[in-house]
Amino acid sequence: MEAKTERSELTQAAIVDMALELASLHGLESISIGDLAKRLNLSKSGVFSRVGSREALQIAVLQEFDRRFQEDILLPALREPRGLPRLKAIMRLWLERASRADARGNCLYAAGAFEFDDREGVLRDHLLTGVKRWRQALRRCVLQAVEVGHLRNDCDADQLVFELDGLFAALVREIRFMREPQASPRGWAAFENLLSRYLS
Amino acid sequence: MEAKTERSELTQAAIVDMALELASLHGLESISIGDLAKRLNLSKSGVFSRVGSREALQIAVLQEFDRRFQEDILLPALREPRGLPRLKAIMRLWLERASRADARGNCLYAAGAFEFDDREGVLRDHLLTGVKRWRQALRRCVLQAVEVGHLRNDCDADQLVFELDGLFAALVREIRFMREPQASPRGWAAFENLLSRYLS
Repeated sequence: MEAKTERSELTQAAIVDMALELASLHGLESISIGDLAKRLNLSKSGVFSRVGSREALQIAVLQEFDRRFQEDILLPALREPRGLPRLKAIMRLWLERASRADARGNCLYAAGAFEFDDREGVLRDHLLTGVKRWRQALRRCVLQAVEVGHLRNDCDADQLVFELDGLFAALVREIRFMREPQASPRGWAAFENLLSRYLS
Repeated sequence: MEAKTERSELTQAAIVDMALELASLHGLESISIGDLAKRLNLSKSGVFSRVGSREALQIAVLQEFDRRFQEDILLPALREPRGLPRLKAIMRLWLERASRADARGNCLYAAGAFEFDDREGVLRDHLLTGVKRWRQALRRCVLQAVEVGHLRNDCDADQLVFELDGLFAALVREIRFMREPQASPRGWAAFENLLSRYLS
């Protein structure tokens, strides 16, 4: 019984893994249970029994994306000292992630904003919540930079977070769609321009 | 014969119109000849005979999008004096367009950057060329603002165009996906922050 559960979990992880790769390439709405079953050599009912529904699988894919995003960006950044070093680490790690040659460099949230701008429902809500959670984390980093005296007290944190996150999303497009070789230096210059308004 | 040609052109325009609306809502890749035939009460072969192929229709949709974009943004902006008035008109018209309640406020180029980041082919090339053409137009406006003395001579036009276009794309997401009520004032503040570095 234990072995069976373990195998089932492995299979479930393989399904989510494959679905995440497809979603990174072609969007969350491209996920198809029939297609996954074929690729993983499983029956369609076998995939359904492990993931519950297509929508539940899409949510599981977003959660796995969140886990990897934390692993790639948030956790390493949290190891840097508060303030500017941490903000700069986020920028560096963001650029590194977006510059990866594989599908992991794509951003389901940046892409999902255009996939789900006119669709209501659980997935849109999940995406929106994720972006807001990320901006909260970014806002904490900005406020800490004020606290430790790297940024000035009159720093408009909400405005800066809006501009930073806009830059991050624009950079995903610049690197992955435009494939612009100058994206990293231009991104750094834009980042420093944003911060320069509030430097102490 | 003339009446027939005219009717045929009207039908072709109706197909492109409907396809553009669907693409604005669900992406260029969502365009399906069968679906369009059903919606327009035409035969599938009737649609094919008028548009040639699905890819030709997608290109026609992008061209119609370009025409409307010019009509909504570029042409009215060109009626403003060169320099800052024209750059500000572009920003104002961009915000107005993105804030429209209907599908016309969506941007096939901003969305297409995520739809076609990992797909090669004619559509990706067409999207990329369109973004570059738009940035060239933006660059001319920036250089004119330098010429007429509104922006300083040391203005890094390429960097500013990158930052402006990044802001525009970020605003489409902020308005249409985040549905953020503060998007316009935050967008304006970001726009003025970008220009302020180079004001004479």
